[in-house]
Amino acid sequence: MRIVLDAMGGDYAPAEVVKGAVEAAKDESLTIVLVGDQAKVGLELRKYPKKNNIETVHASEDISMSEHPVEAVRTKKDSSLNVGMRLVKEGRADALVSAGNTGAVMAAALFGLGRIKGIERPAICGAFPSVRGHVVVVDIGANADCRPAHLVQFAYMGRAYVEKVVGVENPRIGLLNIGEEDTKGNELTIAAHKLLRNEVINGLNFVGNIEGKDILENEADVVVCDGFVGNVVLKFAEGLIFSMTKLLKQQFLRFWPALIGVILQIPALNSLKTKIDYSEHGGAPLLGVNGVVIITHGRAKARTIKNALKAAATAVKQNLIEALSLIKSAGVSVD
Amino acid sequence: MRIVLDAMGGDYAPAEVVKGAVEAAKDESLTIVLVGDQAKVGLELRKYPKKNNIETVHASEDISMSEHPVEAVRTKKDSSLNVGMRLVKEGRADALVSAGNTGAVMAAALFGLGRIKGIERPAICGAFPSVRGHVVVVDIGANADCRPAHLVQFAYMGRAYVEKVVGVENPRIGLLNIGEEDTKGNELTIAAHKLLRNEVINGLNFVGNIEGKDILENEADVVVCDGFVGNVVLKFAEGLIFSMTKLLKQQFLRFWPALIGVILQIPALNSLKTKIDYSEHGGAPLLGVNGVVIITHGRAKARTIKNALKAAATAVKQNLIEALSLIKSAGVSVD
Repeated sequence: MRIVLDAMGGDYAPAEVVKGAVEAAKDESLTIVLVGDQAKVGLELRKYPKKNNIETVHASEDISMSEHPVEAVRTKKDSSLNVGMRLVKEGRADALVSAGNTGAVMAAALFGLGRIKGIERPAICGAFPSVRGHVVVVDIGANADCRPAHLVQFAYMGRAYVEKVVGVENPRIGLLNIGEEDTKGNELTIAAHKLLRNEVINGLNFVGNIEGKDILENEADVVVCDGFVGNVVLKFAEGLIFSMTKLLKQQFLRFWPALIGVILQIPALNSLKTKIDYSEHGGAPLLGVNGVVIITHGRAKARTIKNALKAAATAVKQNLIEALSLIKSAGVSVD
Repeated sequence: MRIVLDAMGGDYAPAEVVKGAVEAAKDESLTIVLVGDQAKVGLELRKYPKKNNIETVHASEDISMSEHPVEAVRTKKDSSLNVGMRLVKEGRADALVSAGNTGAVMAAALFGLGRIKGIERPAICGAFPSVRGHVVVVDIGANADCRPAHLVQFAYMGRAYVEKVVGVENPRIGLLNIGEEDTKGNELTIAAHKLLRNEVINGLNFVGNIEGKDILENEADVVVCDGFVGNVVLKFAEGLIFSMTKLLKQQFLRFWPALIGVILQIPALNSLKTKIDYSEHGGAPLLGVNGVVIITHGRAKARTIKNALKAAATAVKQNLIEALSLIKSAGVSVD
């Protein structure tokens, strides 16, 4: 299996990206195709013993985190993202992983790979840690404004991902909402609730509304919401963990013996920060484009890159794209 | 000053509500008017030494947490909420505090007190703990669907509350959004951003977009959003603290000496839970109705009730309603 890795994407590219490729290449069933500036990538690669299952493909341009995504993808034809997507499109690679500009990855995937037939809006799927395992939230930022039927498609895409890649059978689907009752919500969620309820006869395991407080309580395996709400919640979670670290330190210092408290909490909180960081779970798949694309965190280091490559490999092995392309026949129509 | 306290509202009513009234009545400048079933309230009151600044007013009905708010308020004319609002409306009390059904408090306030002229949508204002002090979020659940101009009104209402009741001069106003740039967001926030930017010439201290991760970082004193997003984030925060307590316990148990870790964390986490619980900060004011109304948590116990009564007293003393009624002249118009 051949996986493209965007060597120029992310805050620590290319050094940490290349390092992650080297670590992932220990699995000899994988071939990692590093796409980027060949001189820079070569310089990094020379730090490690030569691996036969790491290849490089030159791309003369790269897209930075601050560039306008659509504009950059359109004008930089030879950017690592565009070159990488072409390799996937042409069947010369099976998947792509990038820690780069999320919007640019999306735009390059849409232009380069197109959408899966029947999927109107590709969405990004994020994993939140919960008391038991993880819960997957779709969408976490690709679609700021959604119509009700989009949320139904997110439900089917999240189900396919969780079944195939996470390995949960018949995952429970919840709708992020502001009340438990069917009639609660805003215009979008009230309408989406009805549509999701109608899909139960088509086999969707819809368990109803999930309130903010229940996201982490494993009441559903997949939680659907529009990308605005999903992104606010994801970032709020990251921020809350960060602030809680500070707050807990302040609190602990008030209790004797303060030093022991601080020493004890550090590994526990670091472990929690790792848990909340979706990149640790192999990154966030962009679902609905015609190819396996995994977006990892901009701050991804080697370990995260390796995990993302592994997740991409699992998605390919499990025929995720085939599963996603069956969604249309499951009775979804976009209003 | 006379403050109505809904004796029948909340999971621990009337016992904890009455206890909270007794505690608040130590401040002799306050008169607490307990509205509810006189027999039940009397039974609770007899547990404490008689206070001259606690009065009771009978109401033969009450509205439970599970009732349909508007329906219940319309049909139960003699519910404690309706009777209490009438006392405020008629000038026989200065404010009302309830730990009851949030929707019912809102409906009773709208029917009983009406809106302040110029305010189209009353909103609920929640306090989140942050690294330095608190940040106030408007709206946390009164309005699931909003138009851009509503968010501008929320900004002015939040400003009035923070200036008058929290005591921050010229508070910084932020717009909850999914990117820092002016052009980021969904249709609602992109349009609201422009309107808020236009209000800078009218003296609004608008500091731009606030992302989810920055809510708790004190980058603004007031964060505005629609009530759907605000409610999801508020409840997610409550849930995350709850789940983190469990997760931290799991984590701590992995480190030696585990017992010390667990013992140390309990007061720290309890203190954090107290911080995140908005009811501890005097409850959440319903802004925009023609009277001071404070909604406290359904699980409010005596201490929270006392804090809510104190917050109501501050709002009355600081002429919050007068400040809110000046908003229209600040140049806001609802599209």
